[in-house]
Amino acid sequence: MDQKLVWESLKRDAAAMFSQEGVKKKLLAGRRLKIKFGADPSRPDLHLGHTVPLRKLKLLQDSGHEIIFVIGDFTGMIGDPSGKSKTRPPLTFEQTRKNGETYFRQAAKVLDPNKATIVYNSKWLSEMSFGDVLHLCGQYTVARVLERDDFAARMRENRAIGMHELLYPLMQGYDSVALHCDIEVGGTDQTFNLLVGRELQRSYGQSPQEVITFPLLPGLDGVEKMSKSLDNYIGIDEPADTMFEKCMKVPDALLQDYFRLTTDIGDNEFLPLMAADIRAAHMLYAMTITGMYHDQEMAEQAMVRYLSVAAGAAPDAVPEVTLPSGLLPLTKALVLAGLAASLSEARRLIAQGGIAVDGKIITDHAHEIKGDAPVLLRRGKARFARIMFHCPHTPI
Amino acid sequence: MDQKLVWESLKRDAAAMFSQEGVKKKLLAGRRLKIKFGADPSRPDLHLGHTVPLRKLKLLQDSGHEIIFVIGDFTGMIGDPSGKSKTRPPLTFEQTRKNGETYFRQAAKVLDPNKATIVYNSKWLSEMSFGDVLHLCGQYTVARVLERDDFAARMRENRAIGMHELLYPLMQGYDSVALHCDIEVGGTDQTFNLLVGRELQRSYGQSPQEVITFPLLPGLDGVEKMSKSLDNYIGIDEPADTMFEKCMKVPDALLQDYFRLTTDIGDNEFLPLMAADIRAAHMLYAMTITGMYHDQEMAEQAMVRYLSVAAGAAPDAVPEVTLPSGLLPLTKALVLAGLAASLSEARRLIAQGGIAVDGKIITDHAHEIKGDAPVLLRRGKARFARIMFHCPHTPI
Repeated sequence: MDQKLVWESLKRDAAAMFSQEGVKKKLLAGRRLKIKFGADPSRPDLHLGHTVPLRKLKLLQDSGHEIIFVIGDFTGMIGDPSGKSKTRPPLTFEQTRKNGETYFRQAAKVLDPNKATIVYNSKWLSEMSFGDVLHLCGQYTVARVLERDDFAARMRENRAIGMHELLYPLMQGYDSVALHCDIEVGGTDQTFNLLVGRELQRSYGQSPQEVITFPLLPGLDGVEKMSKSLDNYIGIDEPADTMFEKCMKVPDALLQDYFRLTTDIGDNEFLPLMAADIRAAHMLYAMTITGMYHDQEMAEQAMVRYLSVAAGAAPDAVPEVTLPSGLLPLTKALVLAGLAASLSEARRLIAQGGIAVDGKIITDHAHEIKGDAPVLLRRGKARFARIMFHCPHTPI
Repeated sequence: MDQKLVWESLKRDAAAMFSQEGVKKKLLAGRRLKIKFGADPSRPDLHLGHTVPLRKLKLLQDSGHEIIFVIGDFTGMIGDPSGKSKTRPPLTFEQTRKNGETYFRQAAKVLDPNKATIVYNSKWLSEMSFGDVLHLCGQYTVARVLERDDFAARMRENRAIGMHELLYPLMQGYDSVALHCDIEVGGTDQTFNLLVGRELQRSYGQSPQEVITFPLLPGLDGVEKMSKSLDNYIGIDEPADTMFEKCMKVPDALLQDYFRLTTDIGDNEFLPLMAADIRAAHMLYAMTITGMYHDQEMAEQAMVRYLSVAAGAAPDAVPEVTLPSGLLPLTKALVLAGLAASLSEARRLIAQGGIAVDGKIITDHAHEIKGDAPVLLRRGKARFARIMFHCPHTPI
């Protein structure tokens, strides 16, 4: 692929580059570049949020560059030395390797694994002596490390920061020194750490890496960034049905971002569709994503299942009405359940095909419900009621 | 020596103990204790300020405890990794060993070197891996390290603190862990670092050391603490004459502190003397100190020389009067130099033995000055004037 096209694509979608001029120059120089991407080994399950930078890495890979996945196993194995953090339990060597492989296997759904390298930063960090650490630390002032947003906020709010935590950005940055990276790619939340790498390379006499950050994908809740721990994610390793269904739940207001950041579909295709039929646009998105991470056939099956469930399924919170057991005319049941105002309206609705019992449309207005097991009534697309029956031998 | 007496002495002279109860308990338990004292290898010349804690260590040593001198060669060898500090040039391995020996040789003027140990902290610190460092750092929060006075001041004033500097207190503290110290002794300016050691031992599952701090000896300027770099010090390795002379310059207001902190002379001896004759008290102090760090005979010789110089010597800043060369009556010279208001006063002063020429008392009021070389006139103890003569062949 032409480096100029790669450059155009990065320029269009990156949140920021440090520096734009530097990225352009390096790409157009035509040299095979070492491109770093940091991976958290404690969270090996990738979701669509991860694919935002991964898709750009794919582009860079296709145009001939070397992609290096850095698995931050070193700190992962140490965990939180203060023992205070429950979110950072130490991983064993085996776990970090297993998680690294899981990560890489999933990333292979976006990138060509044969043209990417996976490295573990314990390789060089565990070899460093106290003297090396002091030398590394000597390149940075306390004030500059404390500028990192989360540190600054914790300092302001008098929340504890462990001394070891202050070293993490330096370690991540040192990875770039150890690897002689040309470019590092990450989410905007990693900007600080990525720039530390750039500056440390300069301190260690290397040509500083360029930094490219990409926007964070908002989660399905439309509030937080996508994250497994917040359960607002679409995992790229999830079953096709789940994936399809979750894609259908992307908030309308975010669908445009999702299209742009996670698919190859152009604005000229999805924008008119969204304007004309937002549900159809969701279907297109769900089909596309499920097709990407499974295949087209599975995507279609997932759609069929989704539509049949959507037609028959009821939301969890359905009003319930409990009636005496025994045969019950459907018309009466509809009135008792509040889905029809009168028996005549009930009859009309049934005749129009607007009523389903347990997901099956009933057009016979003389239909009777057996009254021995709960049934789900639906009027139109969205109004549900569940009818329960007393056991005839049980006093109410 | 009875541990109870040692305890009494420490309690009387310590600036603070953490905790008093702990020190008492450990001493009275009768066990041989490991007592740590940190030494800065970049400043191997000891002065009287150093002897304040050293003299207490001697007491502890005499009563059976093990004194461990920790030479902080590790950071010394690393120097300032940022390369920004001129005050902390890196030392070579040979320099740290040489300085350590110099330090120890001088300390041997106070302590018994055969009953003390000298250790270099590079022994354990250089063996530590990055993982060990992170574990160490994990025991402390950033906020607590930044509480150290000098860090706090630099943060307040937006003066840079290198990330590596933040690790120094932890390294010093870790020395106590590596050595399993029972007690650490130091100046009040070391309180923070000493307490870090105490807390780190606790974190590493050891019984925390007790900390005893001693007051800092003020320097000869009466303003700053005694320090070689401020040139307000009395070095314990200085020649007897210099030592004696410097002791005579201790500001009157500080002489009491000097007696208490650096000699064994009791209040009941020096206090009445100071009240009766401050100069005699200074002489006693100078004799005592010079006797301690040289010997009694050399101290006496130094005193004799001091007194003869004092009798004849003039301070550097003496008013000068330049007169035509040639024989000059002393009386006239005194008037011209401003030391007498009139010739008759000059005669009376000479007759009273209140006038010296070049340090020699002249009682002959007809005395004449040759007028071929500068002479120093003295009236009483403190008023001086120097008479210079024009060369007869040189035009003025």
